[in-house]
Amino acid sequence: MTAPARPDATHDPALASWVESANRPDTDFPIQNLPLGVFRRGEGDGPRIGIAIGEEILDLAACAELGYLDELPDVARACTAPVLNDLMALPAAARGELRRSVSALLRRGSAAESDRRLRARGLVPQATVTMVLPAAVGDYTDFYASIFHATNVGSMFRPDHPLLPNYKWVPIGYHGRASSIVVSGVPVRRPRGQIKAPDAPAPEYLPTRQLDYELELAAWVAGSNPLGEPVPIERAEERIFGVSLLNDWSARDIQSWEYQPLGPFLAKNFATSIAPWVVTWEALAPFRVPAAPRPEGDPPPLAYLDGATNRSHGGLAVTLEVRLSTARMRERGIPPCRLSRAEFGEMYWTLAQLVAHHASNGCNLRPGDLLASGTVSGPEADQRGCLLELTWRGAHPLRLPSGEERRFLEDGDEVIMTGWCERPGLRRIGLGECRGRVIPAPPA
Amino acid sequence: MTAPARPDATHDPALASWVESANRPDTDFPIQNLPLGVFRRGEGDGPRIGIAIGEEILDLAACAELGYLDELPDVARACTAPVLNDLMALPAAARGELRRSVSALLRRGSAAESDRRLRARGLVPQATVTMVLPAAVGDYTDFYASIFHATNVGSMFRPDHPLLPNYKWVPIGYHGRASSIVVSGVPVRRPRGQIKAPDAPAPEYLPTRQLDYELELAAWVAGSNPLGEPVPIERAEERIFGVSLLNDWSARDIQSWEYQPLGPFLAKNFATSIAPWVVTWEALAPFRVPAAPRPEGDPPPLAYLDGATNRSHGGLAVTLEVRLSTARMRERGIPPCRLSRAEFGEMYWTLAQLVAHHASNGCNLRPGDLLASGTVSGPEADQRGCLLELTWRGAHPLRLPSGEERRFLEDGDEVIMTGWCERPGLRRIGLGECRGRVIPAPPA
Repeated sequence: MTAPARPDATHDPALASWVESANRPDTDFPIQNLPLGVFRRGEGDGPRIGIAIGEEILDLAACAELGYLDELPDVARACTAPVLNDLMALPAAARGELRRSVSALLRRGSAAESDRRLRARGLVPQATVTMVLPAAVGDYTDFYASIFHATNVGSMFRPDHPLLPNYKWVPIGYHGRASSIVVSGVPVRRPRGQIKAPDAPAPEYLPTRQLDYELELAAWVAGSNPLGEPVPIERAEERIFGVSLLNDWSARDIQSWEYQPLGPFLAKNFATSIAPWVVTWEALAPFRVPAAPRPEGDPPPLAYLDGATNRSHGGLAVTLEVRLSTARMRERGIPPCRLSRAEFGEMYWTLAQLVAHHASNGCNLRPGDLLASGTVSGPEADQRGCLLELTWRGAHPLRLPSGEERRFLEDGDEVIMTGWCERPGLRRIGLGECRGRVIPAPPA
Repeated sequence: MTAPARPDATHDPALASWVESANRPDTDFPIQNLPLGVFRRGEGDGPRIGIAIGEEILDLAACAELGYLDELPDVARACTAPVLNDLMALPAAARGELRRSVSALLRRGSAAESDRRLRARGLVPQATVTMVLPAAVGDYTDFYASIFHATNVGSMFRPDHPLLPNYKWVPIGYHGRASSIVVSGVPVRRPRGQIKAPDAPAPEYLPTRQLDYELELAAWVAGSNPLGEPVPIERAEERIFGVSLLNDWSARDIQSWEYQPLGPFLAKNFATSIAPWVVTWEALAPFRVPAAPRPEGDPPPLAYLDGATNRSHGGLAVTLEVRLSTARMRERGIPPCRLSRAEFGEMYWTLAQLVAHHASNGCNLRPGDLLASGTVSGPEADQRGCLLELTWRGAHPLRLPSGEERRFLEDGDEVIMTGWCERPGLRRIGLGECRGRVIPAPPA
């Protein structure tokens, strides 16, 4: 049994950085956060691993070259790779050491503060780089862990059985597509697909008319378990490297026609957007909360999904938000408008339960695999994490501040997801942004 | 529009090789076949690309070193990789050139026949090597392309709607797990999972009692399409590098409890076995047949799934067979017994249709992706490609020559899949074997 990562000196809200933009109260990236990502300095440059600090990026390969990671040779080597997978393969202890080293390096008054070479070679403004995918995703799995989302969607697709009998026992999930995961900012092309109107005799191959987003949080897998060996729930958290915002774009009309009996396929695999920054499990330590209590009468999880640490600390107090900006709103200078805000701590299944369930049959999880939560919806109408739920499959269009209506997404619409952790007495940390703009379908 | 690969001089049944074992009538690997695979010579040796010829392997990296591929520098470079992905990334023309070069090299009377260095370094007996996975699989997709299988399974899981209304329109598929694909010969551990007896109040976490195999043929993807750009049906065959036998192991009791609403997950992702040899699309050219005729009254495919070449040549005349060997049969010297034999040419959807459908929403397919057909079953009872169908979910156990009965697989059972192409006037070519033995579940 392993204790969860505990808050330590790196979370001290009094810590400040010599990177001054990290000390502003509204930054997502104070010195208490230190998320990892991969960036290119210029068009022809190779991808490099960095840590976001205020409005800058600390270039970890440069830190290694300058000797700042000499005491952590495995970490230093992993930091020179073009993806985070090698870092994700290291033991959890190594990740903690990297965090403490970088925290010490960026702290006001550190020796690094006056190292001109570090400032010249090791710091680069976020505004000048191109972010790329943080890791090579071996396998991408999407879960369905919000009971509010599952109940809402079930009510629309299966009015007679909104919540299936397995939901409270099985953390339902399915495999998604790794090849079509794109980093925040990459435009998303409206897909074509088979669509069958309820009263039509036959389907047609057309651009989707029901393009939707899904607000999700995704966990990056750390370490490996050999094929055939499950991961006990009390060791499951060691397998989480960190989390990122994720948009599971969905074509609802394609989905409703294709999804039986084997689940969503082309309705989902045309694109999945992910935020560029991975907020580490260590950074999240102060924002752990008990797993959401199960409503009276719900069955307790089976033993392989139940553990003391999971009960006391399995939840994560992250607030997630979606905003929308249409082409007309941008033309008129109207800022993006909020569509929903929900609490990740209210999910029916915790991330540790998703990991333990995924490996419960011996399935091998590899460093860089991605486990998305499923749409994060809360119990209230303004907490619903996709348009399908917000407009009740188009029956109740949204009215936007531009006067426009939306049932589903139109070309030019931009979906912006954000997330943050905030608790009294602690420094707020943010997850950055997951952003994607819809572009028209290709010609037939 | 692209014509399908046509039979040429490399398919001439009169061709013989100086590798004498390739000239035996019963070999899977005559000079007309030339399938690709990856092998290790010894424990500590790295993986190398080879071509099966009779009972030997032609080491392609050695051929490149010895100058035999000097006229094909891109091919030569790709042949020194530890996986086939680089070869799969080359244009179809390059694959044809490799085939013709190797065919010329292995032909009786070639200059290579008397090259002692080639015989010493370039040929290695299959019996002495360890085969490994042919490629790094980026994404693995499993289809459901046999209407006989879909109808049988549907009758058991959904007696009121055996064949769903989308089946004849949509080549149904779902994403599988890439990490748990193993090469033929790797033992398969019986998975645990949630199982709920129909009359039980709650599920339990137990070793599956309904372990099954599924006989499938899988296509390896060649080349790439950019995200957002569909692949027209008439170009779809260019995207098929070759085919291999595949066993989609399934736990039926886990499957029936977990699969709604998002499809199979832990019931399938504990292991998928694949044969080590990839029979190339070029080798299959003489075995192309018209797409299976659709029964009277079935709708024609939508235009994006319909093309002249697909109609005239979309089918593949491959015969597939499953045999079973139990521990008791091996003890008593009883040879494996046949469970089913079916014709891949009877599939409802062709491989080209699976490719075109998969990319019809712009999903990007990458070299080394794997597209499995789904269980290959025919209309007759002895053509059913899994135990679920053969025993009708256990209701009609099989009686084996050892006197044993089987509803589902027991520990120690070994499933052996084979496949071959045979037509009058042509040399028979085989797909090798996909073999896997069941080992007990891990302790709880």
